[in-house]
Amino acid sequence: MIDRDIILGNLVRAVHILEESKNFVMLMPEVRINIVYALENASKPEDVAAIDGRITLVKNRVKAAGYPRFGASSHMARLIINIMKYDPDLRAGINFLWTPELSRFLQRYAKEKGWLYAYIDREKEPVEIRDIEGMSMPWKVRELINFTGGEVPRLFCETPGWGKEPLTVLLGRSAVEVALEAVEISNKWANYSSGK
Amino acid sequence: MIDRDIILGNLVRAVHILEESKNFVMLMPEVRINIVYALENASKPEDVAAIDGRITLVKNRVKAAGYPRFGASSHMARLIINIMKYDPDLRAGINFLWTPELSRFLQRYAKEKGWLYAYIDREKEPVEIRDIEGMSMPWKVRELINFTGGEVPRLFCETPGWGKEPLTVLLGRSAVEVALEAVEISNKWANYSSGK
Amino acid sequence: MIDRDIILGNLVRAVHILEESKNFVMLMPEVRINIVYALENASKPEDVAAIDGRITLVKNRVKAAGYPRFGASSHMARLIINIMKYDPDLRAGINFLWTPELSRFLQRYAKEKGWLYAYIDREKEPVEIRDIEGMSMPWKVRELINFTGGEVPRLFCETPGWGKEPLTVLLGRSAVEVALEAVEISNKWANYSSGK
Amino acid sequence: MIDRDIILGNLVRAVHILEESKNFVMLMPEVRINIVYALENASKPEDVAAIDGRITLVKNRVKAAGYPRFGASSHMARLIINIMKYDPDLRAGINFLWTPELSRFLQRYAKEKGWLYAYIDREKEPVEIRDIEGMSMPWKVRELINFTGGEVPRLFCETPGWGKEPLTVLLGRSAVEVALEAVEISNKWANYSSGK
Repeated sequence: MIDRDIILGNLVRAVHILEESKNFVMLMPEVRINIVYALENASKPEDVAAIDGRITLVKNRVKAAGYPRFGASSHMARLIINIMKYDPDLRAGINFLWTPELSRFLQRYAKEKGWLYAYIDREKEPVEIRDIEGMSMPWKVRELINFTGGEVPRLFCETPGWGKEPLTVLLGRSAVEVALEAVEISNKWANYSSGK
Repeated sequence: MIDRDIILGNLVRAVHILEESKNFVMLMPEVRINIVYALENASKPEDVAAIDGRITLVKNRVKAAGYPRFGASSHMARLIINIMKYDPDLRAGINFLWTPELSRFLQRYAKEKGWLYAYIDREKEPVEIRDIEGMSMPWKVRELINFTGGEVPRLFCETPGWGKEPLTVLLGRSAVEVALEAVEISNKWANYSSGK
Repeated sequence: MIDRDIILGNLVRAVHILEESKNFVMLMPEVRINIVYALENASKPEDVAAIDGRITLVKNRVKAAGYPRFGASSHMARLIINIMKYDPDLRAGINFLWTPELSRFLQRYAKEKGWLYAYIDREKEPVEIRDIEGMSMPWKVRELINFTGGEVPRLFCETPGWGKEPLTVLLGRSAVEVALEAVEISNKWANYSSGK
Repeated sequence: MIDRDIILGNLVRAVHILEESKNFVMLMPEVRINIVYALENASKPEDVAAIDGRITLVKNRVKAAGYPRFGASSHMARLIINIMKYDPDLRAGINFLWTPELSRFLQRYAKEKGWLYAYIDREKEPVEIRDIEGMSMPWKVRELINFTGGEVPRLFCETPGWGKEPLTVLLGRSAVEVALEAVEISNKWANYSSGK
């Protein structure tokens, strides 16, 4: 069970990092935030830990609604499982806000960092895939890989879809790593936004 | 402050009702649930109380992330303020899941109850309105009134929009009233779904 | 149910006041804090609302563990019910830290306010009373009344007992009133303590 | 940081175990419960993780008030640090209810398990030690060792003291181990209590 303890404890530290951040609130989307961290060789949502109840805002401060738990996420868990088929080291991910302006900012940010930045164009998703449970996620991740020409991008977005809020996703090797990166992004974005 | 106490306390009871419901979990949308209750003559979000951090799922059970607080909601608060311009008695509202099938079920349910059921077609929303803060909500509520021919419907939905999750909204005279109705809907829906 | 809403909502506001206070943390006892507010003519714990799970410290900040709920307290609920037999207006109470030094400070504070200050000497409690469920609280409240010569004191303490943490109790007409008073006491105490 | 992740994650699993237990509520003391798990060679409270805000009861169910955090406990942290001077493997501990009857039950239970059971008699604590910050805990742990004749007991209690609630303490090698043991004790105790 030591692998599970490492993952759950890493998520605890990631939540502390996000809750203590001053600017991360600026990245809150309507669907709220989740952060996932998968066991090696994860193949189903029960192999992936996430924050139960997601991460929300209480008194305008970032707050986890529940504890980390294996099986607490469905969408983000299936995303990371499909990502790991292409890059087994990228076992953690976080989702946050997408807006056209934030997207342009992140594109430049990724370039400075030497990261790939990609997007999944939900308009291109074939209807017959979208509506079959379990078909959508493999299609999305293939789109990402096609976009970059073979590599998994550290940062990407899902553009607005029909009835779907657009979101940015950041990937990494641990929950703490993606939390630290997400906080750094929020700090740079706060700085950029106030300087306009 | 007695008006404020009544509203906050009524929201406490509404949350207890939702948390104790067995089937209400079935109505959880991606954006999570909120329930609002406005002061008489409410004109701004600070006059409307809502659940801070929204109502989410922890361990697959309904759970409020924070306490009721005036000013805790923006979207649902502006909705109820605009509704109250047409019917000042409808000071409370709750949002929950929308799917095509649930929508058909709710249409029949509303009919049995003698309620109006309406929908806001987000496809019809003019782009110039959608993008201006504060313009969208009055347009939406006018659409509702046009739909029914003058009366505020107790139950309505916002259909899927571009980048927007579709949602059902139920209105009532108090937070407890809408919570009890929402739980009844979830019970009927659970029964209907299992019987298919 | 409007009486219940007023009480639950007033407790919500009281919790917001305590959570926003900077110095109230200094008054946290080992048993944690509770605040109760009773219905008129309350005769059993189910007629008294309190904070479910009590008020504790998270990240060194005051935080309510759960929502206000009727029946959530036993000890403080029975205390207020017995107090109300002597003064039916004193329907709210809060417990907090007791130390010999804080006690001397509160005695002076009460004098300035024109309040009675009393203490229940647990050493004097007859063993045959202490051990019978439901006998102890009436004895304690009689002790208070004897101490002051007939009036219920706004502020009093239960001195250390055998296996019992000593506590200070503040009474008032509403939960918000006792929360505001408790915060004022913590501010004065912080000021006094730092100035020594 | 992997050592810290293991400890925090193990505490997460321990909390899930306690929260899912049916009978553990029966062991709730007034001061609420905490569970600690120390880094190897822990020498100060910041080296020991505990549940922030302690573990309390909400809606009569066991509920952690906050997340695990290093430095979240003082009393239990200092206890485990002193225990580890005698047995460095016993890095985890939990406190719970003490009553004379539970104590007699636990003495028999420990015997069946082949565990040592001891108690710290707070009446014997010299006043000059009790009142000096940091002196009390080493004295207590020495008392335990004297009681057993050299070994650290897995289960012990602190008897009622002047102004101090009596408590039972269970030690183990990990937070999950002590949580599982504590749940087993609560199940046996529930069984024993109902069978009387």
